[in-house]
Amino acid sequence: MATRLGGGAEFDRIRAIVKALGPRGSLLGNDVVLLPLGGEYLALSTDVSVEGVHFRRAWLDLEEIGWRAAAGALSDLAAVGARVLGVLGALTVPPETSGDAIARVMRGVDAAAGSVGGQLLGGDLSRGEAMSLAITVVGVTSQVMTRSGAKPGDGLWVTGELGGARAALTAWTAGRAPDSHARSRFARPEPRLAAGAWLVEHGATAMLDLSDGLGGDAGHLAAASGVALSIVLEQLPLDPAVPAEAELLGETAAEFAARGGEDYELLVAMPAGFEGTEQFRLTRIGMVSAGAGVALTLAGRPLTLRGYDHFA
Amino acid sequence: MATRLGGGAEFDRIRAIVKALGPRGSLLGNDVVLLPLGGEYLALSTDVSVEGVHFRRAWLDLEEIGWRAAAGALSDLAAVGARVLGVLGALTVPPETSGDAIARVMRGVDAAAGSVGGQLLGGDLSRGEAMSLAITVVGVTSQVMTRSGAKPGDGLWVTGELGGARAALTAWTAGRAPDSHARSRFARPEPRLAAGAWLVEHGATAMLDLSDGLGGDAGHLAAASGVALSIVLEQLPLDPAVPAEAELLGETAAEFAARGGEDYELLVAMPAGFEGTEQFRLTRIGMVSAGAGVALTLAGRPLTLRGYDHFA
Repeated sequence: MATRLGGGAEFDRIRAIVKALGPRGSLLGNDVVLLPLGGEYLALSTDVSVEGVHFRRAWLDLEEIGWRAAAGALSDLAAVGARVLGVLGALTVPPETSGDAIARVMRGVDAAAGSVGGQLLGGDLSRGEAMSLAITVVGVTSQVMTRSGAKPGDGLWVTGELGGARAALTAWTAGRAPDSHARSRFARPEPRLAAGAWLVEHGATAMLDLSDGLGGDAGHLAAASGVALSIVLEQLPLDPAVPAEAELLGETAAEFAARGGEDYELLVAMPAGFEGTEQFRLTRIGMVSAGAGVALTLAGRPLTLRGYDHFA
Repeated sequence: MATRLGGGAEFDRIRAIVKALGPRGSLLGNDVVLLPLGGEYLALSTDVSVEGVHFRRAWLDLEEIGWRAAAGALSDLAAVGARVLGVLGALTVPPETSGDAIARVMRGVDAAAGSVGGQLLGGDLSRGEAMSLAITVVGVTSQVMTRSGAKPGDGLWVTGELGGARAALTAWTAGRAPDSHARSRFARPEPRLAAGAWLVEHGATAMLDLSDGLGGDAGHLAAASGVALSIVLEQLPLDPAVPAEAELLGETAAEFAARGGEDYELLVAMPAGFEGTEQFRLTRIGMVSAGAGVALTLAGRPLTLRGYDHFA
């Protein structure tokens, strides 16, 4: 959802902003801002979802548009192990939009916030040509968790299952109705606030949420931490809809999942001795070593992924 | 900038949202959310500015677009006497927008935040058809200041001067170059953070910022406080450009200023004994009494104002 520091034109634009702002700009480029306040840190993040860019009205109902936008921003809080205080939603809608439609979108925002112990606190409403929803999430954390602390020897883990959102997207794009579980992964992603907080408590050294896809986001973690990551693609936890959709595209299931964005699962580096948990689904998919970059292997052979792009 | 609970379709829409959300919705409809945190209150507000609705590219340069959007949101913090912690900016731009243009908008946001001791903390970037900018401001305050505490006997005061933004707008709309002072009131409004904090410290009973214009916003304060306000229009502090623009429209200068929105000055009720200050410009314009509604007088005669609408 948020513009991550991936490749391409958006990356160049954000870099130009960072450069133009000078020292203050060093705070930009992170998905979450951590602000010291009264012995803790306020965690803040803002995300825009634009109709035709991040979602299509034909695919999602209005509550799902609200849920998905809020969940994408809440996922940024999960990635720093913060607990949520609340959500603000600034909605822009075409002039003919009904009050009921507006209420449905905001109800979706509130429901996503409520699913992780927060609520919709306030908002703004404006008219514009396309629907768009700017979500700001506010949380609190007692520790600074970043994507930059991974150390050689750490294990690399991921929450939940991957590829579900992309499976829904490829079905829709091909004019098919998506598998219902995959559809729900796209329409109502579950921000991993509880898992994020647990992982920080249990020694996570670096963490981020998978919004651009494992292929791209692992590179961000490696670059920020100054380490190399090796990922064994067979170990990826797959959404049940992935194999069938992957086959239609002529990709292996693991490759399909690694290229799939917007699952909003957490990618986390845990210290060497960490052996997993039964608290939530957490799968070891690789390890951290000295060096740079991300090495993916499938059946023992290196694999290069193309990056994930937004669909429109 | 924010959608206030004025009349018309937007009001009905927000009411539908509030209704649909149930008890939680009671937090919506205020411009600022106050959230208890560590013995103080976090003050949060989010505002969207949309090209063609809130600003026109032909009127403002890119830094001014950023400044104005941020200042409008920061003004919400001023109205509760909060100090600013920082600003988040989520910018949507057409695909062809240059990185330099994006940086200019964000520099304007940062400059407005910096003018009141804050800074741009983070943001998001997306593409869309029109430019739009969602600003979220985060502040802290030790007291709960609302628009609902005015009491009969209080004096009614306003900061700064009124009508400058509208004077610029009427000139632009008529195809003329606005007076430079008035233009600056529209393009770079100064959020009254210092005045707001001072007024809260000195006993303010109710306060809001004038975004819809004195005519409309005074009604909000009266309704929220359950009191009547009487305003003597001759006492309004006028922007120097007002008399000439008012004359062109066939309005009195005071009426023109009272109908002018987006000056982002503070309207505040102060206890009976309060006699003003030399710290900043503050003018007594009326008083609070038992009853309901707003009575405006000019030359001793009652006057009814039409409401202020956004220009587009």
